[in-house]
Amino acid sequence: MLSNSHGVKIEWGDCDPAGIIFYPRYFAMFDHSTTLLISVASGVSKAQLFKRYSDFAGYPVLTTQAKFLFPTTFGDDVIITSTFTKVGRSSFEIRHELTKNGKLAAEGLESRAWVTRDPHDKTRIKSHPIPEELAARFRGEA
Amino acid sequence: MLSNSHGVKIEWGDCDPAGIIFYPRYFAMFDHSTTLLISVASGVSKAQLFKRYSDFAGYPVLTTQAKFLFPTTFGDDVIITSTFTKVGRSSFEIRHELTKNGKLAAEGLESRAWVTRDPHDKTRIKSHPIPEELAARFRGEA
Amino acid sequence: MLSNSHGVKIEWGDCDPAGIIFYPRYFAMFDHSTTLLISVASGVSKAQLFKRYSDFAGYPVLTTQAKFLFPTTFGDDVIITSTFTKVGRSSFEIRHELTKNGKLAAEGLESRAWVTRDPHDKTRIKSHPIPEELAARFRGEA
Amino acid sequence: MLSNSHGVKIEWGDCDPAGIIFYPRYFAMFDHSTTLLISVASGVSKAQLFKRYSDFAGYPVLTTQAKFLFPTTFGDDVIITSTFTKVGRSSFEIRHELTKNGKLAAEGLESRAWVTRDPHDKTRIKSHPIPEELAARFRGEA
Repeated sequence: MLSNSHGVKIEWGDCDPAGIIFYPRYFAMFDHSTTLLISVASGVSKAQLFKRYSDFAGYPVLTTQAKFLFPTTFGDDVIITSTFTKVGRSSFEIRHELTKNGKLAAEGLESRAWVTRDPHDKTRIKSHPIPEELAARFRGEA
Repeated sequence: MLSNSHGVKIEWGDCDPAGIIFYPRYFAMFDHSTTLLISVASGVSKAQLFKRYSDFAGYPVLTTQAKFLFPTTFGDDVIITSTFTKVGRSSFEIRHELTKNGKLAAEGLESRAWVTRDPHDKTRIKSHPIPEELAARFRGEA
Repeated sequence: MLSNSHGVKIEWGDCDPAGIIFYPRYFAMFDHSTTLLISVASGVSKAQLFKRYSDFAGYPVLTTQAKFLFPTTFGDDVIITSTFTKVGRSSFEIRHELTKNGKLAAEGLESRAWVTRDPHDKTRIKSHPIPEELAARFRGEA
Repeated sequence: MLSNSHGVKIEWGDCDPAGIIFYPRYFAMFDHSTTLLISVASGVSKAQLFKRYSDFAGYPVLTTQAKFLFPTTFGDDVIITSTFTKVGRSSFEIRHELTKNGKLAAEGLESRAWVTRDPHDKTRIKSHPIPEELAARFRGEA
């Protein structure tokens, strides 16, 4: 399964009055990590995915869970490693591991749907099979 | 000129490790205040504005300035009063005053453009005259 | 077990380019909902909790999980109902249900620790028994 | 005067339903840019500044203004260059220029105060002279 790592510096504005990360910010980081992972898979940016697949409407989260083992704080350099853990027909799962100095500080597991605009009502989205060439890359086969 | 006030409770997650508001959050509050003010003027939500005016693409900020007189903190109940200060042909200005216990804690002044999708390139936006019935309400004339 | 509901209007700035809620914002809303619920239990604001319990350092999230059933969008008025589901010695669990027009759009389940400053190292936090008068109110007994 | 540049990738979650940057996110980026600039000046992280100067309580914004020339969108790689423009006794000014492909997309100008904890009331902050060795570095003299 495909995996990608990137570094993030925890910012002052990511932290709360206790001086530690405000955990919703982790989910924003995980969301960006998913986008980076899919960019590695597709070879293009998310913006270009919208052009390549004309009805494509994103990959919203269906379920997510996270565990926070120890807090991080502003100035910390962390690494987020995101890995596909399951690739289905029109949904997939990704695990995010956030480490500081090699120690796991937080982990997230999310399932997402591949969605397209409903041709009958453009304001609605519906799940759609992941394009096969992409699914193969998600699985690390291509 | 039209004006609107609403209350906001400062949240734990709006504050930084110094225990006070992280000022970018004020701009998010001001942005929402502008949307509420325009809803009062139009009588409909922003979502409905997109339906009423088919090419409408929003009212992005051109310039903004803000002054922070004293900090607020989590749990504070503040009031934001937003008032049109200038209504031009395709742009307008709004002043936001954020008070705590009747004392001015922050103020913002912003200019925004009324924009529509460029008919020649739907990915682009361009400034467009404010619909006259709306402009009249912005001015408090209707 | 104690429960509390409050209304939230989904803001333009809470939404992403797909026009729907950016899900990390739900966690920020859930965090605030937890603070409101604990305020109902304690009768005071979170700021006052820090004064009442001198070593108190917050109630950080240990684990969380969420399910998103259908998306919400800017202008939507939703209701978040937060309920204690488990109250342990130094940790507790809360379930959040976010509904739109009475239909469940999102739910979150979180476990949190009650923490105090480590007396031997004020920069560190450690779990601590929930003050008994508060725990009783969390359970709805008082 | 000291200057520092760093790159930022605009994220999906930084953008609004119009598909462009939600401008309060620029202020969060500018805030982090200021922290990076001051880290370059001091040679240490903001967290370490709190240890080095025992009463130090941050550098809150007093006033800010910004101009947005053209919008950026998710996936855009931008460069933020932050430069001291004025260094006073207990306050300073910084200009941020955000460019995409060498073109100025946004600029911000902010004034900040150097503050310390009020020795008579630790919950309050008050302006305080910038440590001279830091002020010299802000000015680019050291």
